[in-house]
Amino acid sequence: MDLKELEQLYADELLNNVVPFWLQKSQDKEYGGYFSCLDREGNVYDTDKFIWLQGRQVWMFSLLYNKVEQRPEWLECAVQGGEFLKKYGHDGNLNWYFALDRKGNPLVQPYNIFSYTFATMAFAQLGLATGNAEYADIAKKTFDIILSKKDNPKGRWNKAFPGTRNLKGFSLPMILCNLSLQIEHLLEEDFLQQTIEHCIQEVMEVFLRPELGGIIVENVNTDGSLSDTFQGRLVNPGHAIEAMWFIMDIGVRLNRKDLVKKAVQTTLTMLEYGWDKQYGGIFYFMDRKGYPPQELEWDQKLWWVHVEALISLLKGYQLTGSEECLQWFEKLHSYTWDHFKDPQHPEWWGYLNRQGEVLLDLKGGKWKGCFHVPRGLYQCRNILREINQRENKPRVNIRENSIV
Amino acid sequence: MDLKELEQLYADELLNNVVPFWLQKSQDKEYGGYFSCLDREGNVYDTDKFIWLQGRQVWMFSLLYNKVEQRPEWLECAVQGGEFLKKYGHDGNLNWYFALDRKGNPLVQPYNIFSYTFATMAFAQLGLATGNAEYADIAKKTFDIILSKKDNPKGRWNKAFPGTRNLKGFSLPMILCNLSLQIEHLLEEDFLQQTIEHCIQEVMEVFLRPELGGIIVENVNTDGSLSDTFQGRLVNPGHAIEAMWFIMDIGVRLNRKDLVKKAVQTTLTMLEYGWDKQYGGIFYFMDRKGYPPQELEWDQKLWWVHVEALISLLKGYQLTGSEECLQWFEKLHSYTWDHFKDPQHPEWWGYLNRQGEVLLDLKGGKWKGCFHVPRGLYQCRNILREINQRENKPRVNIRENSIV
Repeated sequence: MDLKELEQLYADELLNNVVPFWLQKSQDKEYGGYFSCLDREGNVYDTDKFIWLQGRQVWMFSLLYNKVEQRPEWLECAVQGGEFLKKYGHDGNLNWYFALDRKGNPLVQPYNIFSYTFATMAFAQLGLATGNAEYADIAKKTFDIILSKKDNPKGRWNKAFPGTRNLKGFSLPMILCNLSLQIEHLLEEDFLQQTIEHCIQEVMEVFLRPELGGIIVENVNTDGSLSDTFQGRLVNPGHAIEAMWFIMDIGVRLNRKDLVKKAVQTTLTMLEYGWDKQYGGIFYFMDRKGYPPQELEWDQKLWWVHVEALISLLKGYQLTGSEECLQWFEKLHSYTWDHFKDPQHPEWWGYLNRQGEVLLDLKGGKWKGCFHVPRGLYQCRNILREINQRENKPRVNIRENSIV
Repeated sequence: MDLKELEQLYADELLNNVVPFWLQKSQDKEYGGYFSCLDREGNVYDTDKFIWLQGRQVWMFSLLYNKVEQRPEWLECAVQGGEFLKKYGHDGNLNWYFALDRKGNPLVQPYNIFSYTFATMAFAQLGLATGNAEYADIAKKTFDIILSKKDNPKGRWNKAFPGTRNLKGFSLPMILCNLSLQIEHLLEEDFLQQTIEHCIQEVMEVFLRPELGGIIVENVNTDGSLSDTFQGRLVNPGHAIEAMWFIMDIGVRLNRKDLVKKAVQTTLTMLEYGWDKQYGGIFYFMDRKGYPPQELEWDQKLWWVHVEALISLLKGYQLTGSEECLQWFEKLHSYTWDHFKDPQHPEWWGYLNRQGEVLLDLKGGKWKGCFHVPRGLYQCRNILREINQRENKPRVNIRENSIV
């Protein structure tokens, strides 16, 4: 694998294929915000607007502007989406709806905490891009609301009967690992440290289970013990692997080599565990006891799972020099580019069946928007660039140059 | 196709394969009620109890006792499940939870109206089996609660923002078609007529759309117009086809030949529409404009869809003599028995992938219990028996003998 060619490939795909697709096809020039339901060629097939994806696209274009190049069309795209979100995305008190119609009328109540987390990411990054304090303020206030809701994120829409089976989920601490670093410029240092420590503890000590061979489960009892129930047996390999590059970033930030090493090991463990030995690719859902999961889509191959795993493997290689990471990356890179990239039209497929065939003929929908593919390409291109820059320095061994 | 052999086949499968499976494997002798999460051989892999399936099994065993044979073990099975449901299934005011743990502690709040409908069916049939007026009373009172909730079935757990997009769903009027006849002995004649007329009107005039070639959609605007949204484009062929045998039963009950004829025509239309021309079997979900549906399981082949379609086709043949129904029945019978029947262990598979391969290695789960397979076998065996008894009378043409 030629890592220089690879860097070029990822950069090219990001800047000349995927970003132009969203820039040109998704913006609603009439009402503002973004369409995310786009067919193979980028035509709009549904106009509903989902807050997860509105927020994620504001974040993505703000980040591109902040970190890649200050192209005015990227900033405009981010700002118009941010203004739409600011005006229509919440109830006036920063309670973020789940979905809006095209014009911005609320369709689905603010029951979903991740609408809040992606709004926070969006406005924090947009604040950096514009220098507008109002955006930063929205981010900070929404983040405080998230923390206040963390023990019952669904609020009055929670259908669990209180007291019978008290579970806690992996998703929120996992997302907070990433979000805390994303918005660290808005947080007090003490508070940031405390939040990060809590998330590390939850992710790496509570949901990661040595007694199960080091896999991560999606739900545990609130006392931290395993639950032998559908929810308690659920494993989502992509979710766990994505969390590991968040943890690696934290490890770098805190200069904690042990954390990086454990995250790299867990990436490899989860990949072994989740890999479909028959058809290739990573399963969507599994049951840790091998029982039938409730999720009928359990054996499907989803774009985000594969893209996130590429990041974790490449980051793992960069930070530890692990040859196993590099080998897995090569194998996964081949599978992902062979199956998810559409050779005829821009952007990638999102949903394949177990055999790796296209299951839904779309480039965007209710859950797939301008996020995992461009973020993954951006991350991989950056990591490859850093590796290649280091390698250009004569006779520096990658392992010596890594933090572990 | 030899219809006498077929009658024997369906009767045999019901009485010597499927009913014994549930009788022997599902009863919780310690805490009462039924396990529904059973693996291929009938071993319990999860002990949670779902009210839909508890109610349906009480109904099924009561019906077998009332209509097939008064076997004491069937009545015992129905009564112990009914007692468990009566004691633990609701909040004290007949608000029926969605799920309980093994011991009967509530797990999921009473947000789902179909927990109520299946409780009604269960206690009405159990009342007939036992002559116990308390059971009949529970059925009647629960039915009244269903009607009082029909404009907002999810109550406080409804996540739709009020007023933006007012849709109504096919499911409730469709289930009420069947439920009204199931509990007609508990209803006043006027009220029964009125309820049935309302359901016929909704199912056959509102959700059935001549402008779409006579298919049935799952959701429309409350004013009856089509909605070009994910929910408004959703088609569930199995759901529509199941409703058609409910309508045929109503047509027979009211002696309305027009209704029977339209239901038979719609069965054939939906089957043509939903049939997978590439791999065979009936799709689970479709989008009426051909757009990608939100449901990732859209192309899977589910047991209940195929079993319900067998009933509608056979009933259609019985009532109208339609050769098209008989031909479709033969084709679907072959597909269903070839793919869903497990040749090695009792009961049928529930979930196949598009190709017709087993997707989940289970005989029961959160949604599959003692209901569609035994009810379908029972219905088909009855219809075949009636057809065969008529044919034994010399020189009576089936078409002349039918009501249309």
